Amino acid sequence: MQNKSKIILGIDPGTIVMGYSLLQTNGQTMQLIHMDVLKLSSVEDPYERLQKIHFKVCELISFYKADCFAIEAPFFGKNVQSMLKLGRAQGVAIAAAMQAGIPVNEYSPKKIKMSVTGNGNAAKEQVLNMLQRMLEFTDAPAYMDASDALAVAVCHHLQQNSVHAISPGKSGGWQQFIKKNPGRIK
Amino acid sequence: MQNKSKIILGIDPGTIVMGYSLLQTNGQTMQLIHMDVLKLSSVEDPYERLQKIHFKVCELISFYKADCFAIEAPFFGKNVQSMLKLGRAQGVAIAAAMQAGIPVNEYSPKKIKMSVTGNGNAAKEQVLNMLQRMLEFTDAPAYMDASDALAVAVCHHLQQNSVHAISPGKSGGWQQFIKKNPGRIK
Repeated sequence: MQNKSKIILGIDPGTIVMGYSLLQTNGQTMQLIHMDVLKLSSVEDPYERLQKIHFKVCELISFYKADCFAIEAPFFGKNVQSMLKLGRAQGVAIAAAMQAGIPVNEYSPKKIKMSVTGNGNAAKEQVLNMLQRMLEFTDAPAYMDASDALAVAVCHHLQQNSVHAISPGKSGGWQQFIKKNPGRIK
Repeated sequence: MQNKSKIILGIDPGTIVMGYSLLQTNGQTMQLIHMDVLKLSSVEDPYERLQKIHFKVCELISFYKADCFAIEAPFFGKNVQSMLKLGRAQGVAIAAAMQAGIPVNEYSPKKIKMSVTGNGNAAKEQVLNMLQRMLEFTDAPAYMDASDALAVAVCHHLQQNSVHAISPGKSGGWQQFIKKNPGRIK
């Protein structure tokens, strides 16, 4: 059980809109600090988009002194082109976390829904509804990408505080597993 | 026509092997400084791979004081999974260049082959043969990924010194186009 206050940066990366959230946790408790989106639709140059994503993530980590980074990472997509673009967006965001030396954790959309609502196929509205109840806010964000980013941060917190945290699967990084379970490595 | 000496860092990113090359140019002349590969097959953790790619590119830019960054970027692939992985590898490499504030240029494999050999469908051996003649070296690299990375650096140099350099297509970045052609932007 953890007692130290931590800031989780949740990211829902995309090349048109990137959602982000900051969640403060202390043991089992959670508090929403901030959630918003970075809009990229008006930026035509693909490098400028990647640069904006990278810069924003660096800025958020630095400003809020984030302790860890959780990213929503779909493993399947419509086509190879869109997956390459998504991969690049994920890559520059992940690089920002690596630069800052904070651990990277990724969760599939199904895992996030399951973790937050108990149903891996929950609708976005159900996820938002549960987040509102958990974190006691009523305003719906203008973009669902912001609450998606909040969901991944909440998912990370719940995973850290559940028995699943001992599994080194997709839900956490291997390094984190080793750190949390030094006795299990020979 | 440019007269200033420049160092181009060429990258052929991959999640198993990443090729890299350093090419010094001065006006139309070129000189091979170094080419090699970063092997990642023994690294099991996908984040550790991304971290190694990011660190290596940061290190190369810093050590060789690279002025620009050229990357081989296939736009199509076998499946969405491999493209997502490739996109991430590209993303962390691009982020390293962005951090250093050097321009990013990407070229498709076809464009590189066309630029180096005059044939967009040239075999890898033909490309290597032409590079050996242009840069006066005889040793074939142990991994073709290294010479692929050299080919992208050479392609970038040739594009900079050709009439194609005024086109803002896939061969160069939009910012570079604006920089080179300030009169064409209203």
